[in-house]
Amino acid sequence: MKIIAIDSSGLVASVAIVEDDTVVGEYNVQYKKTHSQTLLPMLDEVKKMVDLDLGTVDAIALAAGPGSFTGLRIGSATAKGLGLALGIPLVEIPTLEGLACNLYGTGQLVCPIMDARRGQVYTGIYEYVKTQTEPVSYTLHSLLPQCALSIEEISGQLNMLGREVVFLGDGVPVYADKLQKLMECAYGFAPAHMNRQRAASFGMLAMRYLRDGKGVDAKDHGPEYLRLSQAEREKKEKEHSDGHQTDGKN
Amino acid sequence: MKIIAIDSSGLVASVAIVEDDTVVGEYNVQYKKTHSQTLLPMLDEVKKMVDLDLGTVDAIALAAGPGSFTGLRIGSATAKGLGLALGIPLVEIPTLEGLACNLYGTGQLVCPIMDARRGQVYTGIYEYVKTQTEPVSYTLHSLLPQCALSIEEISGQLNMLGREVVFLGDGVPVYADKLQKLMECAYGFAPAHMNRQRAASFGMLAMRYLRDGKGVDAKDHGPEYLRLSQAEREKKEKEHSDGHQTDGKN
Repeated sequence: MKIIAIDSSGLVASVAIVEDDTVVGEYNVQYKKTHSQTLLPMLDEVKKMVDLDLGTVDAIALAAGPGSFTGLRIGSATAKGLGLALGIPLVEIPTLEGLACNLYGTGQLVCPIMDARRGQVYTGIYEYVKTQTEPVSYTLHSLLPQCALSIEEISGQLNMLGREVVFLGDGVPVYADKLQKLMECAYGFAPAHMNRQRAASFGMLAMRYLRDGKGVDAKDHGPEYLRLSQAEREKKEKEHSDGHQTDGKN
Repeated sequence: MKIIAIDSSGLVASVAIVEDDTVVGEYNVQYKKTHSQTLLPMLDEVKKMVDLDLGTVDAIALAAGPGSFTGLRIGSATAKGLGLALGIPLVEIPTLEGLACNLYGTGQLVCPIMDARRGQVYTGIYEYVKTQTEPVSYTLHSLLPQCALSIEEISGQLNMLGREVVFLGDGVPVYADKLQKLMECAYGFAPAHMNRQRAASFGMLAMRYLRDGKGVDAKDHGPEYLRLSQAEREKKEKEHSDGHQTDGKN
């Protein structure tokens, strides 16, 4: 099974071609260019490097959200275009689950945090549970599925669980100082080579999703924003305040 | 601190630019092209993508061996050329240690195995030890430093230790069936996104090496083959058998 995986949900732009147990090609960039400048050229570069025949690809996996609204739309449009053109399904991976996948097999709780602005992080709490087969393998379980919370709220939930935690994601540099004050249980941070989105992780996870029949038709895909966009929020606030004004006038 | 990391020790060609806690760029390919076709074009590609000014790079990290003899020479020549031209040190990372670094923080023993042909693997046994500082961090310790052993020998050593092991590296597909017969303790295999060399792991490790003053002058660098090359071995065997013939004649 061959999968093209892409991620543009955060600061990283990332593409990977995963074939069964092999990452055939992977290209990750964390740099100030926008994803519209990087994502497709990166995919084109890897495609050429590994002589990829697009006709042999079984599915397109993507970080389906949450994340940067613009980033998600670039990723979704790219994945949707490829899926429709090639007539293959998409595999929508929750962004936080893909991030947690970087730390496969760890004994600690995994808490990815992405800076969601407005005092919130996109986050979740995950753990790896050992399956009983031989050879041993681990499956990712969510104790708290992805959501938008304040750093105080997520720290509170982790303190209640009382287990050692490893944090990763672009929220770490933003909230490291606050976490030091808030965390009452042992915690650490993932190192550089594991601390951001990797399309290879999303591609690996997508293999399991596909085996479980969780592919979706490209035409039905839409990103999972988790929150309203700024424009929608302002529209809603305006409607609300217009409503109040109307009330006042009546 | 900014580091260019390269790896061409095995089947993967990999380059990364790591700056402190950030992987600025990373490109990994596992495809049938030779490293002489891939490594420098990949580095050039990433360099352009992230507008890298070579004058700002502090060191060149590389997988210094063991591995494929030709692969190691390509990597060493590339790193040496860059180090000499830029007047910066090299950081020689033992290949097996770099591989083990993919599984940062795991509670299992880490056993990378690379197919060394002639019935042997390049291998080692590593574990992560928690440091007592807050935030928690883990340091890689070697229980068996990298060496060339038969799969029976390394399995025997792991069975004596009796702890759960995770295997990774290009030796896994070659020896998975044999390991099933030989292993008496619990074991598993790293998943696709963690199971091969990543220059990002070598770059991350190189940060610590550099801080510990372990950079080397580019002119002093040579790869660590661990075994004699085929040509050297045949020469030695020939000398040995010539010696025996001479003895016989005298």
